[in-house]
Amino acid sequence: MNQPPPLAWLQDPIYPLNETIAHLALRRQMQLTKPPGSLGLLETAAIQLAAMQHTVMPSADRAHITIFAADHGIASEGVSAFPQAVTGEMIRNFSRGGAAISVLAKAIGATLEVVNFGTINDVEALPGVIHHRLGSGTANFLHAPAMTEQQLSAALTAGFDAIERAQQHSVGIFIGGEMGIGNTTSATALACALLNRDSPALTGSGTGLTAAQVAHKAAVIAQALSYHRAQIDSPLDALRRLGGFEIAALTGAYLRGAQIGLPLLIDGFISSVAALAAESIVPGCKDWFIFSHRSAEPGHRIVLQAFDATPLLAIEMRLGEASGAATALPLLRLACNLHNGMATFAEAQVSGQQFAE
Amino acid sequence: MNQPPPLAWLQDPIYPLNETIAHLALRRQMQLTKPPGSLGLLETAAIQLAAMQHTVMPSADRAHITIFAADHGIASEGVSAFPQAVTGEMIRNFSRGGAAISVLAKAIGATLEVVNFGTINDVEALPGVIHHRLGSGTANFLHAPAMTEQQLSAALTAGFDAIERAQQHSVGIFIGGEMGIGNTTSATALACALLNRDSPALTGSGTGLTAAQVAHKAAVIAQALSYHRAQIDSPLDALRRLGGFEIAALTGAYLRGAQIGLPLLIDGFISSVAALAAESIVPGCKDWFIFSHRSAEPGHRIVLQAFDATPLLAIEMRLGEASGAATALPLLRLACNLHNGMATFAEAQVSGQQFAE
Repeated sequence: MNQPPPLAWLQDPIYPLNETIAHLALRRQMQLTKPPGSLGLLETAAIQLAAMQHTVMPSADRAHITIFAADHGIASEGVSAFPQAVTGEMIRNFSRGGAAISVLAKAIGATLEVVNFGTINDVEALPGVIHHRLGSGTANFLHAPAMTEQQLSAALTAGFDAIERAQQHSVGIFIGGEMGIGNTTSATALACALLNRDSPALTGSGTGLTAAQVAHKAAVIAQALSYHRAQIDSPLDALRRLGGFEIAALTGAYLRGAQIGLPLLIDGFISSVAALAAESIVPGCKDWFIFSHRSAEPGHRIVLQAFDATPLLAIEMRLGEASGAATALPLLRLACNLHNGMATFAEAQVSGQQFAE
Repeated sequence: MNQPPPLAWLQDPIYPLNETIAHLALRRQMQLTKPPGSLGLLETAAIQLAAMQHTVMPSADRAHITIFAADHGIASEGVSAFPQAVTGEMIRNFSRGGAAISVLAKAIGATLEVVNFGTINDVEALPGVIHHRLGSGTANFLHAPAMTEQQLSAALTAGFDAIERAQQHSVGIFIGGEMGIGNTTSATALACALLNRDSPALTGSGTGLTAAQVAHKAAVIAQALSYHRAQIDSPLDALRRLGGFEIAALTGAYLRGAQIGLPLLIDGFISSVAALAAESIVPGCKDWFIFSHRSAEPGHRIVLQAFDATPLLAIEMRLGEASGAATALPLLRLACNLHNGMATFAEAQVSGQQFAE
């Protein structure tokens, strides 16, 4: 009795950026032996990270990756190029080290864990995989809300828990990722609802649909939107009706990360839609987002525009599973190396002190 | 007597890419546990490097960076935001480890050397710096050819020599860079001559000119082009008249790298103009170019279009000194990690073998 509701933590305040540190970091950039601004986005990334980490010497050395995986009822509408069994098969591949993110995590020296919320086929106990079953995938949102209130709450809280674990590892950067056959359809529907857009402009080929299949996918999303739209009463409700377990968990992780002040490196389209959901639920958490890349999925450009964000990479990646964010991490590290390690005009006795004021 | 002319090596053939390996590498990419094409430019980069290195398992681990530095007579026309003394000061900064490329080279574990062709002020002996003085900078090409035949020949040969040294280090990637106050003016004039374009579209702010100063710079380039254009009888002659010692050395390095089959990671605007000179002198050497980034300098977009190239990065860098190429190297490494280390659909027992044919 008198137990707080399970999502009471959503009311916690967003951790503030340190504007004083941001100013000092910018001033340091102006003193380094290069024309001011000539390192482009590497300068802004270092300053952003300094403001987040409350230190003029930021670091992207320690990063933690959590991949949230789940199946989607909407997959039965024929919206993916791959069979639904692939979600569970890829969870095994993550664990065995054969997936893109497994290779990338090892290469960049980041810790990697996978949270499985439920696939259509059972997946056995596996190293590095947390089984947190919420169902055999979501319900088909063409005819019903994707999640119950309890499932949504559990998924958001699983994101909260992932941030707690990252914090225990004392990491400086959190990277979330997702795996789930059908989840570009879910993310596209959710983005349409949150941005009040129609589906054709945002719908893409996902893992590799033909043009005719993309048109079918857009039509499925349009039909689902017409079913749900009038009843959606909040961003949280849009997430429950159109999202997926892994999308809701990403949303929870981004919300909690922003609350505790953990820099969040956002992956591709689906992760960015989860970030959009987080910002829609609690405005201001976007201060903690660093956008890693712009994917080939057409909706990603629109979601990034909604954030007025310029990602570090735009190299036509469209894999998800945090692969774009992991690929961008070395750029953040180099941004920190340059920011922390370059000589100032004064130290190097280089003519350019006019910029150092 | 009967001594071959010093640039006889320019006649050597371009080393061929291995098309069989390229085909096998593409086939491998199709078998890896991801939707085909979903790693975007990381896939094409791995395949390109495989074809260059004649192995289906390419590597970007060992890289060597040579920075060519020199002063420019054209600087006396007031075309740079920085005083000419900075060229020599930055050579000291490279040697002491305080410059951007010093920090980047250390961070990515690449060997770094600097070749100084001549600054307006003498630079003392320094660790990691080869003094190879060809003059106190080039002549002011507003009124005379920038270089004599002998200087051009010596600079091209210095590029050849840098590739020989890289080969002795058994590196898999060569990165060239440049430092020279005034050298965007030289590179812009050279690009205009090689592409038969007028200066306004290609002229940018370099290290940080105002709009009025950019207009002056474009007018200086236009005047120089009208002085030289009718007399330019070959791409090599355009390089001699409008280039700089460091630009000619980069050109020589790119030519020699293509002849011996060493992958060449091209930096920003000035390096790309040197690459354009190399391709204009010996068509076909572009097969060995990997374009690392698109800089903020407007002429770079036009030069990259001439190559039909899509660089890995476009993050508003405009520093030169190989900084963009060094920043892109981790992406090439991750491309190789993914290509070499991911499981195939068959190995991972993931449904997707339809792509593996």
